[in-house]
Amino acid sequence: MFEDEFVAWICSHPHPNERVRIGPGDDAALVQTRGLQLVTTDTLCDQVHFDLVRDGAGRVGRKALAVSLSDIAAMGGQPEFAVVQMVLPRSMSMGTARQLARGIFSLAEQHGVVIVGGDTNRWDGGLVIGTTVTGSPIGDVWPLGGATAGDRIVVSGAFGGSLAGHHLDFDPRCGLARWLAENFRIHAATDVSDSLSIDLANMAQASRVAAEFDPRRIPLRPVIEKLPFDAAIEHALTDGEDFELILAVPPDVAGEICGHPDSPCPLTDIGFFREGESGLFQRVEGGGVVPVRASGYVHV
Amino acid sequence: MFEDEFVAWICSHPHPNERVRIGPGDDAALVQTRGLQLVTTDTLCDQVHFDLVRDGAGRVGRKALAVSLSDIAAMGGQPEFAVVQMVLPRSMSMGTARQLARGIFSLAEQHGVVIVGGDTNRWDGGLVIGTTVTGSPIGDVWPLGGATAGDRIVVSGAFGGSLAGHHLDFDPRCGLARWLAENFRIHAATDVSDSLSIDLANMAQASRVAAEFDPRRIPLRPVIEKLPFDAAIEHALTDGEDFELILAVPPDVAGEICGHPDSPCPLTDIGFFREGESGLFQRVEGGGVVPVRASGYVHV
Repeated sequence: MFEDEFVAWICSHPHPNERVRIGPGDDAALVQTRGLQLVTTDTLCDQVHFDLVRDGAGRVGRKALAVSLSDIAAMGGQPEFAVVQMVLPRSMSMGTARQLARGIFSLAEQHGVVIVGGDTNRWDGGLVIGTTVTGSPIGDVWPLGGATAGDRIVVSGAFGGSLAGHHLDFDPRCGLARWLAENFRIHAATDVSDSLSIDLANMAQASRVAAEFDPRRIPLRPVIEKLPFDAAIEHALTDGEDFELILAVPPDVAGEICGHPDSPCPLTDIGFFREGESGLFQRVEGGGVVPVRASGYVHV
Repeated sequence: MFEDEFVAWICSHPHPNERVRIGPGDDAALVQTRGLQLVTTDTLCDQVHFDLVRDGAGRVGRKALAVSLSDIAAMGGQPEFAVVQMVLPRSMSMGTARQLARGIFSLAEQHGVVIVGGDTNRWDGGLVIGTTVTGSPIGDVWPLGGATAGDRIVVSGAFGGSLAGHHLDFDPRCGLARWLAENFRIHAATDVSDSLSIDLANMAQASRVAAEFDPRRIPLRPVIEKLPFDAAIEHALTDGEDFELILAVPPDVAGEICGHPDSPCPLTDIGFFREGESGLFQRVEGGGVVPVRASGYVHV
């Protein structure tokens, strides 16, 4: 029996943790939590979020967990436990299924996340892989709607061209979240899955403020930085799956964290939130400001 | 946008709960937990666990949550929070998607479970629906491997013929779990998803004891009770998806709970665990005992 053998193999890779009282193999896991718990869930589907044949099972498994870790980071949390759902094509070999699982395990281990359970099924359809990750707030959580007028818009890393590979291989910003949450006051955060423009617009809307940014300040990923400026900015604003953090931070904090030698990754101040109708605005040459339509890659 | 509209509709059905600090709509939910948390996850796929066209979206959604609630009950826990993953066929109408969600919502409400988040995607494949449910132990948890020699094997409800409809419409045994956990000492439990024979054998193996039952004592569901005895027992032992509880309980507790007027459902003593090689044995007419091969419905 494929599933029995695969599950037995998975269960033979324990990640012992004193907070896991009952791990995989029972009806449910039993874990020790710290009171307030963050919970997030994601599902990735073949031909929508990845191409199994092109990308390879290991990278796909890694991505499936990475997107949920990114969500926990975007709340100012530390991921702790995960459960994984695998719906495998009946044609998938045991070797490929193990590659998929190894992609998950290795990223989990890297981030100190314990896989406490899961569910595995086979069917005639394509690969679907789901993750649910729980974690603990490190300090105050960073709600989407916590930005206030005057806050600076600070972003991690760089944007654009993620489909060239970054969307599979990105490092979820858990280390950054820990450093920031332990040392600085952050008002709001989200991670960029849909696109920089969509996720920033969502943050502005949830916070009931306007977001105004300077496109010349948006850090560009190397794969797009040689494009003409307008095309590069279009990619940076709309490509999506950058899995970088957008942070709303008080101006003094922004001044401190951007360029800080201890920051685990580059941080860039690209603009500010202000009073006014919720929306997205960008500076143009000459000093004016124009509204920007939030858009991104849509999985139609 | 289908997904945006559907998610907005879902988010317009809040289930306010003081322990939910941040609900759907942010990168992750934030919930207040009680220290020890049970976590379980399940995935159901069209043509494997249900037939969307034949069964209807409402019953499918209901089942998707019910199977996870059953797992929490089988640990002696009370379900509290859930996240739901929906991978919808692109051809599914908004009306059908809402039926699916309503099936989940109504069962959640019935059991006081709060949906705190989810993920919705559309694709060219069939419907996949995943649930992850967390809950709290009511008293001591009931591990699969907790049965000891001398414990009685007590089962809830009745068995067999689940595919006729019970596998979609069953009531997860949360009320029974609460009543038992609050009043009695239970050594071990599991719920019957694979089959009575497989899940009882798993319990015996995890507990390193033998399980010996009397087939004449197994309660039969009405749909199979008119079959010849041997055929009916075969169904009861192997059909699966009964989602009843198998409990390992001290003999004095078994005597008290079976037939107890306050029990939320019928409980039946079908045998006992004893020292010896882990395995399944059944009594035969004349008083002998023969080994039973555990088998069940296999989603090949």
